[in-house]
Amino acid sequence: MAKFIVFEGPDRGGKSTQANLLRKYLEAAGYNVLQTREPGGTPVSEGIRKILLDPENSVSPRAELLLYEASRAQHTEEKILPALQEDKIVICERYTMSTCAYQGYGRGFDMDLINTVNNIATHGLQPDLTFVFLMSDKYFTERGEYLFSDRLELEGNEFREKMRQGYKELVKITPNAVLIDADNTVEEIHAKVLGHLKEFNIL
Amino acid sequence: MAKFIVFEGPDRGGKSTQANLLRKYLEAAGYNVLQTREPGGTPVSEGIRKILLDPENSVSPRAELLLYEASRAQHTEEKILPALQEDKIVICERYTMSTCAYQGYGRGFDMDLINTVNNIATHGLQPDLTFVFLMSDKYFTERGEYLFSDRLELEGNEFREKMRQGYKELVKITPNAVLIDADNTVEEIHAKVLGHLKEFNIL
Repeated sequence: MAKFIVFEGPDRGGKSTQANLLRKYLEAAGYNVLQTREPGGTPVSEGIRKILLDPENSVSPRAELLLYEASRAQHTEEKILPALQEDKIVICERYTMSTCAYQGYGRGFDMDLINTVNNIATHGLQPDLTFVFLMSDKYFTERGEYLFSDRLELEGNEFREKMRQGYKELVKITPNAVLIDADNTVEEIHAKVLGHLKEFNIL
Repeated sequence: MAKFIVFEGPDRGGKSTQANLLRKYLEAAGYNVLQTREPGGTPVSEGIRKILLDPENSVSPRAELLLYEASRAQHTEEKILPALQEDKIVICERYTMSTCAYQGYGRGFDMDLINTVNNIATHGLQPDLTFVFLMSDKYFTERGEYLFSDRLELEGNEFREKMRQGYKELVKITPNAVLIDADNTVEEIHAKVLGHLKEFNIL
């Protein structure tokens, strides 16, 4: 019954809320669940996070990519793969698609190169189902700014819009990925999530 | 006149001594030289080194590989490529071949995978000449132990021997790589290094 479910999308799309709801639903139904999120909270990932966030560091683009992937490898090998081996349902916020959206569409990094390193970091592990939570265009105002601020505030709106369009493309070309309209209510979205889990034979 | 010269081989083979001698020779001859070594001494690389060496951390094999490569990417982008763009001769102790020897031959990591990540970390940069300094078998005693201790002491002799044999293979399959018998005197080795630089039209 091991299944790997990934919640993706820009910040403020409701990923955490929905991941919490799904975990509670599955646990109440008797499933063994691991709920996690990148970078995974391992000591190694925390060390990597410190390097990436230190304003004193000028991290080169490829070093940045490889650091994110090292963190993903640690999270995958230390937490995700063992949980799947124990037949758990793993719910993970953010995974390989985030790197495609942020570094690929956002920063213009070569996508083949990203896919190659993603594949190495994950041992080729693919989600059984990826939900991409995206708010509709109405949250992108006519002034070209987002109504919500998020952790990428400093990167500016142009970057966010590239990344957002990237997610729209990615959901089309990724196997077992579904787009979720994040404008709906929490309850409506939760119901849709459960519906897709049944559709994909996960429940 | 940009040239990229790499000094490789296990510890205690005399890489640093020879790199120093070569730098002095080249500077006296009027060349602009950057002498460096992995991990390159950048703040980012220092942070990565701390993660790798912290005994509290249990770094997963792929995370370890990606961390070494992130450090190499930073060193390459921040120091080596700019120096080559300024037409300098770069002398670097350890580069991609070290990962092939240690992670590949030593730890049994898939070599195609290592070559792929090496290529990403270096932007495809290849040394114009790689010297591999190797002591002869007489330093590997009949008891199966090395006469010298080195920083891999904890890994044991079996690991070191695998890695040493790996270097011998690598020098055969790597373009522009030469094996240097590290049993000879410092002066003899320096003369050989200069001879090879002429042979490869670097001097």
